[in-house]
Amino acid sequence: MTSRGSGASRRAAVVGTGLIGGSLGLALRERGWHVTGRDRDDERAARAVELGALDAVGDDPDAELTFVATPVGAVAGEAAAALKAGGVVTDVGSVKASIVEAVGDPRFVGGHPMAGSEQEGVEGADPQLFSGAVWVLTPTPGTDPAAHVLVRSVVSSLGAEVVELTPDRHDALVAVVSHVPHLAAAALMGLAAERAEEHEALLRLAAGGFRDMTRIAAGHPGIWPDICVENRSAISDVLGRLEQALASVRALVEGEDRAGLLAELEAARAARANLPGRAADPTRLAEVRVPVPDRPGVLAEVTTLASELQVDIADLEIAHSSEGDAGVLILTVDEERVERFRGGLVARGFKPSSRRLS
Amino acid sequence: MTSRGSGASRRAAVVGTGLIGGSLGLALRERGWHVTGRDRDDERAARAVELGALDAVGDDPDAELTFVATPVGAVAGEAAAALKAGGVVTDVGSVKASIVEAVGDPRFVGGHPMAGSEQEGVEGADPQLFSGAVWVLTPTPGTDPAAHVLVRSVVSSLGAEVVELTPDRHDALVAVVSHVPHLAAAALMGLAAERAEEHEALLRLAAGGFRDMTRIAAGHPGIWPDICVENRSAISDVLGRLEQALASVRALVEGEDRAGLLAELEAARAARANLPGRAADPTRLAEVRVPVPDRPGVLAEVTTLASELQVDIADLEIAHSSEGDAGVLILTVDEERVERFRGGLVARGFKPSSRRLS
Repeated sequence: MTSRGSGASRRAAVVGTGLIGGSLGLALRERGWHVTGRDRDDERAARAVELGALDAVGDDPDAELTFVATPVGAVAGEAAAALKAGGVVTDVGSVKASIVEAVGDPRFVGGHPMAGSEQEGVEGADPQLFSGAVWVLTPTPGTDPAAHVLVRSVVSSLGAEVVELTPDRHDALVAVVSHVPHLAAAALMGLAAERAEEHEALLRLAAGGFRDMTRIAAGHPGIWPDICVENRSAISDVLGRLEQALASVRALVEGEDRAGLLAELEAARAARANLPGRAADPTRLAEVRVPVPDRPGVLAEVTTLASELQVDIADLEIAHSSEGDAGVLILTVDEERVERFRGGLVARGFKPSSRRLS
Repeated sequence: MTSRGSGASRRAAVVGTGLIGGSLGLALRERGWHVTGRDRDDERAARAVELGALDAVGDDPDAELTFVATPVGAVAGEAAAALKAGGVVTDVGSVKASIVEAVGDPRFVGGHPMAGSEQEGVEGADPQLFSGAVWVLTPTPGTDPAAHVLVRSVVSSLGAEVVELTPDRHDALVAVVSHVPHLAAAALMGLAAERAEEHEALLRLAAGGFRDMTRIAAGHPGIWPDICVENRSAISDVLGRLEQALASVRALVEGEDRAGLLAELEAARAARANLPGRAADPTRLAEVRVPVPDRPGVLAEVTTLASELQVDIADLEIAHSSEGDAGVLILTVDEERVERFRGGLVARGFKPSSRRLS
């Protein structure tokens, strides 16, 4: 599926050489890629070369894959520019629907590694940044399957756990787990700061819980205005629901409703206890083969189903059959989840087969 | 000030032998105290003896100092019972005004170590739990100065940094830095859990920030209904202000007000960066002598002033002068803060003197 000159390095490009772009460069170069990159700040690009994150500064018309690792406001423009050269393009922005819609190209696959931030500096670049991290991809029915498979395979090769979602669903979910928590931490910190002016002792009382809760408010704020504006609909919805949830808790407090408070807190505790840890390395793998028709979106449908069913895809190939244009998806997954995955596939009209690999 | 038979151990009692009571027992026994204790759960008290946190189970009519380390709902009753024996009594509850008012005894000094929780089990008891932790005391004008000094000196001997506040101010401040953050974490977790039912992928996206923010929601919920009810006025006020702050942020998001969002987040970041760390050991100390009239509340006034001015009191004595009933407070403080402290004392009509100790 991917063209690769035998003996020659595969070529990638990185646009924006901050923490994520720099870490991508380091990780790709460790795996034998030739990486060209640039940044709107020339010094930062030069520094990326010094740190070993880039082979060269500039554009690479032969890049097989370009990662746009700029702040979200600049992604669509940079992606469009990179697509002109003919390769596959992905990005690392924290918001997906507006970007994917603005780019609107089959060779663009929206991405979002849940690690680091687009704003942090290249000095902290780390080739292990993505190891074990969740990396969301947001293919759509219009996405070229070859582009999708290329991005997935490269991202997986960096050690990330790929989760595939529609762009809208991604945006709604990150509003809950990232954007609104960040804004809420800032609001809490603001309340504490108001009180601190009255009384310096306040912040000295701040024990571990408060420090934990407000840690994310310590991050660089520069990226957030764009994220908030690009994802304003989902953020506004979730903020509104948080306000309502707090008002409900306040009513329980004012009504001295001990049982109601206990129930709320018990539920939260149970949900917190269920937060999944990082993906374990599956010890037993199975291969699932899914004959697929040649219609747009079928690959995105299968991989998104896998993510919804919490089936980790360890490897993914597309084998073209000899008959007509149909093909076979070959997915390597954790054996424990095979039956669940097969059931989901059958329910959607696919005819999968599977076998144990180990 | 404190009666201590030469050669004999000082005697303390602990009511409630969970994490905090058990840690108190271990820390006091390490410092040579004889510690008697009990718990509503006899097995837990017996376990505290096995773990070395208590010398004996039961009551000690000769205890110089009793720590009531029960959940907040039981503190006032246990404190009243302990006071009948004639010693000094303090507590570790997370709410102070309602307890201090209910007990209403000069020999009771409200306390709240900002470490651990009254609900956790004795198995985690640790004599170092209080080392470097902030421990709030809430003396009032009615508090017996000898009782106040005794509690302060014992708490300091355990390695805690004492901060003195009025009971009402304590309650308002912990609503901001502890109670409302806990409830907000639970509310956020609740929103995530609602979404998780729609889509299992959600919680797998939860990166470090969300985990940090919701960690406190993982604690035992059992203590919170009482805390919320006892401190309902301050919690309701702060929850209401948080709702308003979130609504303001939502308006900025909906209005695509990038500059307003950036300003909010910059302010939060600056406040977070100013969160004081744990108290450093002062390298240079000074002694401040404050002649004080024999009137109720003067000791509480001086120590509360010190806390408001962020002057750490490393040591505190009351020397009674030879003339009449007046006395001299002798405070050992960080030399860097001496001038600030003297200024505050002079502004309140005191006539302090000071000298460097090192």
